[in-house]
Order: sequence, then C-alpha cells, then structure tokens
Amino acid sequence: MRLAILGGIAVTPERVIEDAGILIDEDGRISFVDTREQLEECEDWEDEIELGEKDVIMPGLINTHTHGPMTLFRGVADDMPLMKWLREEIWPLEERLDAEKCRWGAALAAMEALKSGTTCLADMYFFMDAVAEAYAEVGIRAVISHGMIDLGEEDKREEELKESKRVYRKCQGMEGLIEFSLGPHAPYTCSEELLKEVRRLADEWGVKIQIHVAETEDEVKEVKRKHGKRPVEYLDEIGLLGDDVIAAHCVWLDDKEIEILSKRGVIVSHNPISNMKLASGISPVPEMLERGVNVTIGTDGCASNNNLDMLEEIKVAALLHKVNKMDPSATEMLEILRMATVRAGTVFSSEKIGAIEEGYAADLVVLDGSSPRLNPNHNPISNIVYSASGSDVKHVFVAGELVVKNGKLVKADEQEILENSTECAEQLTSS
Amino acid sequence: MRLAILGGIAVTPERVIEDAGILIDEDGRISFVDTREQLEECEDWEDEIELGEKDVIMPGLINTHTHGPMTLFRGVADDMPLMKWLREEIWPLEERLDAEKCRWGAALAAMEALKSGTTCLADMYFFMDAVAEAYAEVGIRAVISHGMIDLGEEDKREEELKESKRVYRKCQGMEGLIEFSLGPHAPYTCSEELLKEVRRLADEWGVKIQIHVAETEDEVKEVKRKHGKRPVEYLDEIGLLGDDVIAAHCVWLDDKEIEILSKRGVIVSHNPISNMKLASGISPVPEMLERGVNVTIGTDGCASNNNLDMLEEIKVAALLHKVNKMDPSATEMLEILRMATVRAGTVFSSEKIGAIEEGYAADLVVLDGSSPRLNPNHNPISNIVYSASGSDVKHVFVAGELVVKNGKLVKADEQEILENSTECAEQLTSS
Repeated sequence: MRLAILGGIAVTPERVIEDAGILIDEDGRISFVDTREQLEECEDWEDEIELGEKDVIMPGLINTHTHGPMTLFRGVADDMPLMKWLREEIWPLEERLDAEKCRWGAALAAMEALKSGTTCLADMYFFMDAVAEAYAEVGIRAVISHGMIDLGEEDKREEELKESKRVYRKCQGMEGLIEFSLGPHAPYTCSEELLKEVRRLADEWGVKIQIHVAETEDEVKEVKRKHGKRPVEYLDEIGLLGDDVIAAHCVWLDDKEIEILSKRGVIVSHNPISNMKLASGISPVPEMLERGVNVTIGTDGCASNNNLDMLEEIKVAALLHKVNKMDPSATEMLEILRMATVRAGTVFSSEKIGAIEEGYAADLVVLDGSSPRLNPNHNPISNIVYSASGSDVKHVFVAGELVVKNGKLVKADEQEILENSTECAEQLTSS
Repeated sequence: MRLAILGGIAVTPERVIEDAGILIDEDGRISFVDTREQLEECEDWEDEIELGEKDVIMPGLINTHTHGPMTLFRGVADDMPLMKWLREEIWPLEERLDAEKCRWGAALAAMEALKSGTTCLADMYFFMDAVAEAYAEVGIRAVISHGMIDLGEEDKREEELKESKRVYRKCQGMEGLIEFSLGPHAPYTCSEELLKEVRRLADEWGVKIQIHVAETEDEVKEVKRKHGKRPVEYLDEIGLLGDDVIAAHCVWLDDKEIEILSKRGVIVSHNPISNMKLASGISPVPEMLERGVNVTIGTDGCASNNNLDMLEEIKVAALLHKVNKMDPSATEMLEILRMATVRAGTVFSSEKIGAIEEGYAADLVVLDGSSPRLNPNHNPISNIVYSASGSDVKHVFVAGELVVKNGKLVKADEQEILENSTECAEQLTSS
C-alpha cells in the first residue's frame, strides 16, 4: 500500500517545506516529496497519515558509533578516565556477558534509540547475532559488527575471525534492516595481521569496517611506540583506510592525518559526549569539515554517555566546537544536522538513507509540534538542533513501517524489554 | 490535607531512599522523609499518591539565571557572537516587546520549565509584573527582577529605579511563589550610582540582587578601562557583593576574584550552554568549587540555549569541565546535582527549597521509571545527571501542589499558552 504523510513542516534537511506531502511506496522508499498541494495534484495513494500543522518531519537520525548492549551498564561507573574505567569496571563486567544479556541490552538500546528519533545504529559489540535479532524485532536499522581484539595472539585472532564469519553468515539470512560489517576494535588492540585480514575480507564480502581510532592521547603514544607512526598514518600505511571505514572518535589527529582521512573518504564518527565524559579530548571537527572529511555523529555506548539521545548529542556537538574555537559560527546548525542524517547515511550500503528525497528509504521521524521546545517556530532547523529533545519524538518510520506511534513502540512490548533488561543488568552486577 | 507520597526512589539529594515515604503538610512543606515503612509507623494522612517502583523522586530543579519571555526568541538568531547577536538581533526585537507579549512568553517558559522538572526560576527581564502573574498562574516559583540599564544617564536611571519600585510593590501583593529582587543588568551597562542605589534598596527591602558578571572577555576589558579594575573587584569595591547577590555567568575570573566571590558568599549562576553557544568562554567552576564558592546552574534565556531543560544543562555542566581540565573527575555527579538543587535553594529567601528534607517546601519532581533513559537503575544519581532528559518528568509539585500530572500542566491550559505565545512571537518578527 502506498502511504501519504500529509501536513507538518518537512526538513529534508536541505529544504524546509511547510504543509508537506510525502509519498511512501510499497517498497518502503520515498517516491515523492513536496507540498501537500503538489502531492495531491500528481499522485494517488491508499493510506494516509495527517500530521499536526506544527509537527516537524525529518529524516531519522543515524547514530554512527555505539555499543547497544552497554545500556546494561548505564550508570555503573562514572567520573573515571578511559583506561581505568575499561580495565577496572567495564572489562570485568563484559566477562559476564552472554547472548541472552546482549539480546536484552540491545532491545533496550533499540527501544531508547527509536523512541528518541534514531532509525539506524552503527554498532560494535559481542554476541552480535543476538543483537541483530533484537534490533530487527524492535524495528531499527543497524550496521553490526563483532568487536575483534587479538592483542597480537594468533589463537585469539583465529577465534575472533571465526566469530565474525559466524555473524556474517547469520546476517546474510536477515533481510533489509540489518547489515553486517567487520569490527577490529582499535589499532592498539588489533595486530597488523588481523587488520590486513579485515581489509581483505571487507573487499571480498563488500562490507564496511568499524574501528575506534585515536580516542586518547595515550593511544597515539602507544601506536607511535609500536609502529613508529600515529594511528591514522599507520592504518593508511597498512592499507586499511577507505570510504568503507567508519572511524570512531578521531580525537587526536595531526594535519597530515586529517588530510589522509579526507583523501581516503573515511567516515568519521564524532562522539562529543563520550569524549567529554571520559576527558579524552576534543576532536578537530571544524578542521575536518573544512578539509572535506565526511564527519558524522555517534553517542558511543551508554556506559560513557549515558544515553543514546542523538538530539542531545547533536546539540552538544554544535556547542563544543564553538567554545573550543571561541567562535560561535565554528559549527553551523544545518551542517550539524547533515552530519547526523544525510552525511551519516553513508554507513549503510544497500539503501540510501538519511534524507527525505525520492529514492531514499522512508526512515522518518515526526517531532511533536505541541512540545514547548518546538515553540515558537521561527526556524525549524534551529529548533531541531538547539532545542528539541529525544522525547519530543511522536512517530517514527523505518523503511516505511511505523515503528513508534505516539511515543510508544509498535512492534515490541516495552514492558517486556524493561523487565528483561533490568534482570540482565542485575545479574551482571550481583556478586 | 496532609498528602503522603509513597514508593519510588527518593534522591534527597544527600540520601537515596528506596520505597520512600514523604509526607507533605497542609502548609505545603515536607514534614517527614524516610522509607514508606517508617512513614506508616510514625504518621497518618488524608490523601496519598502511589509512585511506580522505579520512579525517581527528587527536589525540583532550580534554574538560577534565565529570561523567561525570551522563549519568544527561540531560534530567531543562532551561531553568532554575543555583542553582534545582542545589537543586531535581540535588542531591536526587545524594542517591540510589551506586557502582553512578555506575559505569554513567560507562560511558555513556565510551561516548559515545569514540564521538564524545574520548580523555581531566577529571572531578569522587562514587564516583570506581567511575568510574575504568568508564573504564579502556571504555578512555578520565581525570583523576578526588572533588568535595569542606565548606561550612565541620570534620566534613564530614575526611570529604571521607578520601574523596579513599581514591580516591587506589585510583588508585595503576590503571595508565596513570587519573590521580588533587584536586577542591575551588568557592571558595563549600569553606572556606579545605580549599583550603589541598588545595594541601598536591597538592604532596605531585604531583597536579592541579580546581575550578569564577567560573561565575556570584552566586558572585562571594558570595565578595566573604565574603572581600572576587573568586574568582580570593581563590584566588591563599590560594596555591591554579598550573599544576597546572584551573579550570572562569571566566565572571566582571576584567582583574586574567585577569592572575593567565596569571601562574600556570592551565589554564582553557571550557564554552560549559553557560554558555549555564544562562545563566551568556560567558567572556572572546579576552581570556584574548590574555594567554596556557592556555584549553582542556570540555562540563560531561550535565545542563547535554546531551551530551559535543566536536566540537559546539568549534564553539559558536568561534561564541559571534565574535558576542559582533561580530568573525568573534575566535576562529580552528586556535586552537580547539589548545584542545581540544594545549593541553588539559596536564591529564594522566604522558604527553604532545593532538598527533600523536613521543613523544606514540597517542590518535588517525579521522573518516569518506565523511561528507557532511567533503566537499568544501577545508580539513580548517575541516571538523573547523565541520562535523564527533561521529558522524563511525570509529576511536579510546587509548594505541595500538583502542577504537572502525567506530563501535563494542571493549573493552566497548554493549548492556550502555545497559541498565544506563537501569536506574540509572530508579531515580534513580522515586518
């Protein structure tokens, strides 16, 4: 059935259309975008949804770096530096994870993400077949990867690649919303052999690569000590980088590395809240944008954020660089919105996502025009970036299907997710 | 009628009490706080509200610096530096304000603030009698002040003082929720004569003083050029400072000035989002806390934020200083929560506010335990500071009266506020 969405203010994000008319085809893609009047003149449809006059309809937000099941660790350890936090708190808890726990943690992540306007996650974690199933069931789009760490050990390397292959085969059987990718954890936790094998498999399978890069100053020191080069230079030298690589964090970069990221077309995921909370540093985002690097935005996991609210994340991304550069125009609102939508759409391979344009998947978010944060409406882009919160989300469509209606999940039972994820979280921290 | 609030997790904020029992007396003050079991043993009551097991009950947040009617300017001008933004955008629009517009702008501010968990505003703006009426009607507590600017002109000074006196008399007739204060705008816009008269009147009337201090580096230069001293030194020298002064921003301070703020007991309002958005700079909050300065938190007006969400503001306050000091423990979550509650209670004179303790006004906020952002609940303080959003607010009490129930205003009509404030906003920007 062809579905028309009528009324409201569409932010595509390049155009702002009042009293909009959007047509979604049977295949879940957008086939027409203009005013209601134009739509009524040119097309017909079987089903329709009428939005409020002040409702804002925008592309679903794309969170390009997270670890879904870490919702289970929300609030478990705060106000600590990255390596202490990882070694003393997070890694010991992760030892206790299993598929069932990751499944419910991922369901909670999907619930939180969809309800706050995110329609696609790029995710790296463990037990990713269970995670992929949970995402598909709740109805969120995702690029998933098993996080591989070999620390130079051959046995471990084989084991990690085997697990990635297992998840790859599993994903081949899942349709539409789930895409597989390879997830070498970071240049300081993966051997050169592993990284080169990842490149080979990515080319063979035609899949993306997700990796943490240059998150802390210590990482830069360690990679330099080991390989005589800074992380981005090293990764480029061994042939890993390309436009199929999602490089998370990218906090500690020199000019030459920014140039490499630009030249290779790497997708950078900027994670300002996590970088601030762990005091990792401030990524040179204005410099990257100036040199044409494809910068996108991610929340990182809930243990270092501590939520998945992309509307909060884009506001903080916009604010941080203004004060850091002492220049209020260092990051401009439309560019920030593009970073979380149409630019970020590049993380997904088999569909065009991230814009309200013909041919794009109908991943759409409707913000409630009766929220005080959206009133008055001098500028809907400003209201999205600087004022709205994740909870202003009213409806969410993924691939044309309504997955959040009036703020509630449609395909999954919220109470069941809350109860099961809470039980899993309690099991993790009980002694 | 005595009202018992039963169940949920109370964050007082010093104590975390599971399955809490809170008793509110006829006078709107808290008379008992402990577990439900203890309450049932010791007290009786006529009416009760049962919370969900995972709901979190906390003191209402106190926003110690804002300009309520500026909600009308939300999104009107972004990505610009302070003085250009004021001179070219804000001041010309402010010329077009009148009592009716400020009234509806304030109603929208009160609606947004209450619905996002703020129960008290410290506000400086114009037409403050209309603002005070709107606040009282919607049901929020407020310390209001007419913003005075004389730029050294005697006529203007007399006019501003006359308006302050008019608002003072008006407030004397309003009971309970509204307190009057004096609002000299800033050391660079007010003459020494005006500031000295403000001090005299504050002593005579026993009211607080609200003032912007050291918001930008240019202000420091200007005050130094005119008075040979930095802003805080200058204000101290002319006798303005004391524990009845709310000094907003305090971004550009030297060590000596931090010492003065500490010695005089000045209430500092830290406004991180506004300071980031306008690229004004980063306030030395960890240094102030270390020296015992009474630092609190405010959102500033909606033209430079662009919302009034204190849960967002406290998260950003916590994050900003961690990355600025490259120390993840530079600001700790309980301290941040105190800054927005019990510390900030000092802005109000006639009631104790900001804590769930016996004798304090029952200004209380209940967060919805079924929000994904509050799950799991390893640490409710962490979830409040790092994960919750203003829209997780379920119920709000001010002075023991339920003013937000299930996310909706009780005493005022939301639709009427949205329509009237939108009309006022459109009148302002129409040519």
